[in-house]
Amino acid sequence: MLKNITHVRGFTCWGAHMGIKSKRRDLALIYSEVPASAAAVFTLNVVCAEPIKLSRNHIKDGKAQAFVINSGNANACTGKKGMEGAVAMAETTAKELKIAKEAVIVASTGIIGEPFPTEKVLEGIRESVKKLSNREIAGSLAANAILTTDTFAKEGFTSFTIDGTEINMGGIAKGSGMIHPNMGTMLGFIVCDIAISSKLLDQALRSAVDKSFNMITVDGDTSTNDMVAIMCNGKAGNKEITKKDANYNLFVSHLEKLCTHLAKLIISDGEGSTKLIEYRVKGAKSEKDARQVVRTVSNSNLVKTAIFGSDPNWGRIIAAAGRAGVTFDPEQLDLYLGTELNKLYPVLEKAQPVDGVRKKLEKVMKSSTIIILIDLNQGDAEAVGWGSDFSYEYVRINAEYTT
Amino acid sequence: MLKNITHVRGFTCWGAHMGIKSKRRDLALIYSEVPASAAAVFTLNVVCAEPIKLSRNHIKDGKAQAFVINSGNANACTGKKGMEGAVAMAETTAKELKIAKEAVIVASTGIIGEPFPTEKVLEGIRESVKKLSNREIAGSLAANAILTTDTFAKEGFTSFTIDGTEINMGGIAKGSGMIHPNMGTMLGFIVCDIAISSKLLDQALRSAVDKSFNMITVDGDTSTNDMVAIMCNGKAGNKEITKKDANYNLFVSHLEKLCTHLAKLIISDGEGSTKLIEYRVKGAKSEKDARQVVRTVSNSNLVKTAIFGSDPNWGRIIAAAGRAGVTFDPEQLDLYLGTELNKLYPVLEKAQPVDGVRKKLEKVMKSSTIIILIDLNQGDAEAVGWGSDFSYEYVRINAEYTT
Repeated sequence: MLKNITHVRGFTCWGAHMGIKSKRRDLALIYSEVPASAAAVFTLNVVCAEPIKLSRNHIKDGKAQAFVINSGNANACTGKKGMEGAVAMAETTAKELKIAKEAVIVASTGIIGEPFPTEKVLEGIRESVKKLSNREIAGSLAANAILTTDTFAKEGFTSFTIDGTEINMGGIAKGSGMIHPNMGTMLGFIVCDIAISSKLLDQALRSAVDKSFNMITVDGDTSTNDMVAIMCNGKAGNKEITKKDANYNLFVSHLEKLCTHLAKLIISDGEGSTKLIEYRVKGAKSEKDARQVVRTVSNSNLVKTAIFGSDPNWGRIIAAAGRAGVTFDPEQLDLYLGTELNKLYPVLEKAQPVDGVRKKLEKVMKSSTIIILIDLNQGDAEAVGWGSDFSYEYVRINAEYTT
Repeated sequence: MLKNITHVRGFTCWGAHMGIKSKRRDLALIYSEVPASAAAVFTLNVVCAEPIKLSRNHIKDGKAQAFVINSGNANACTGKKGMEGAVAMAETTAKELKIAKEAVIVASTGIIGEPFPTEKVLEGIRESVKKLSNREIAGSLAANAILTTDTFAKEGFTSFTIDGTEINMGGIAKGSGMIHPNMGTMLGFIVCDIAISSKLLDQALRSAVDKSFNMITVDGDTSTNDMVAIMCNGKAGNKEITKKDANYNLFVSHLEKLCTHLAKLIISDGEGSTKLIEYRVKGAKSEKDARQVVRTVSNSNLVKTAIFGSDPNWGRIIAAAGRAGVTFDPEQLDLYLGTELNKLYPVLEKAQPVDGVRKKLEKVMKSSTIIILIDLNQGDAEAVGWGSDFSYEYVRINAEYTT
């Protein structure tokens, strides 16, 4: 079995079935034996769920000791009773674990606007606290308990060495629809046994999320419940990282690697997704411009339906780039398509269509992984993002979600 | 038969089949016997089609005498040969009609990036000039010749009286997919026999388009080829409108009425559309805010798939409003749904869910026309827009477009 969050020193977890979902587990708990440095990023949606409001307050001190997450009900647009439910989740978790309620980060995911089943959730918390474990299976149960329309659990693990000390980092994520993260991002929970200051951990998380979870899209709908949170409990025994030195950079690079791994798993499980598409933009005037073009093209329904149908209708890619809200000279535009980064076919060169490329494109479009590279030829900035295609199955899943 | 553009004095037209499309007509020509005041708005997509570039120049003098439009090929991303084709369209039309080439407004719609079949198009122009007619059927042929994936032709007509003079106004439009106009907007051509200065006509058109074509969405993809153009040839014999008086306001109100009629026809024919949804936002701080919320919600794939599935999953409406990029207090939010404006059901009041509304919503969601009203309770500004739902059929149409 692959390593998971249970292989990070000083963390235990569980995933319980409390009955919000008919068959699958729906409550996850992740616990650090000791108080940990912690950071989190949240959805930028003006309308945000009750647990988001609560957790924003609880993370302010840069410390946490438990993540508690329910699935099946988003606890969003639930009014006062919803907030009472979120507070009860934190208080019950704190009481059962004998920690401060501010050390508990709460998250929810599922249907918006349904009454929140507080009592069921609290039962699930009590059961999970009793069963907390560092056996591998416990990590998998936690990863499964945060899923909604996902078809598989998303787990990742990486390890590296700092000054001779082995550092372990593991994470779980969920996401399949309503995915178009924006700063605050997907549901993702990462634990690490490194010692690092809260301040640097916050910067590291934001940097890694910007290049991973924030660069994926399934349907352009930013959720009310997005959150990525991390706890680092120092159990590895390294000298605490307190400045942006080589050790910090190594930590960030592994955090980004883990986040990108989880983000790509989410896209692979995109609702109705049949293909994974990598979008690359180079030659932009700024990284912001490059990211904006990636996000617009990867979110175009017309691009995504063409890719689902293996239709080499590349004009839609250019049309989407042009409406991204980024200023560029369209006469300088190059477009490449292919399945391998070092073997891309030119389709458009300086706005002139390349003759005789259609046959090659027809083959590319049938592949299950496709790379699209747009060179704006306006500067040196670039960005990479990932997206899914758009199928009948997406429509079916979302036409029948609550019924 | 309903009146159409042929009932506007001094205009003739035709729609020819030149063979870009296998069976349906693909070249439309609309001609004014005398030089006319003219105005046009164009796509804001950075990447725009060759005819858009040309027509932007030709409209600068506020005069025009002919609209020539081909369908089946967008003449976009076609490089130098594409521009040569657009210029040839204007020159051939001018030569055959014995008018200046700057008096010709050129438009194209269809597949992006395919070589432009200039010779076929020029043949179609020569044939159409010979057949120009003011018989009703000629208006219908023109309306049919500009269609692509549309399933029906979109025509409108209105008349009113200014100082005892009858004014006639007619228009045609096309649009079914790649519809998310932005300032510049859909393919629409309007003719009127009113006398009005070019300057005021330009202002009138922008005002009307902003509240009609710019408030519809099918899939959020702004085309490279969007254009709405109008010619007013003064054949009605009214005293020319040269200031913003009551006559100007009457003209604008009828222009807005005609544009809204055509815009709603486009939505009714949205690719795979099964329902027409009216989105209303009130209580916004500014009209810009209200419009932004309308556009974001009406463009949400999750809202549209839920409506297709008659799933009363109203939380998605709130989630989309929250990500519109507009600042508002989510605790003040009201949401209403229904099928008639004076009989809407409250769903959310001051962010508190209304009990027992689900049964009513289930009935509303099964209707073929649905009204969604969001009251932000932040100010006095409001906006209205229209959108389609999102079906399996949309995916099928767009997965198979060029193949």
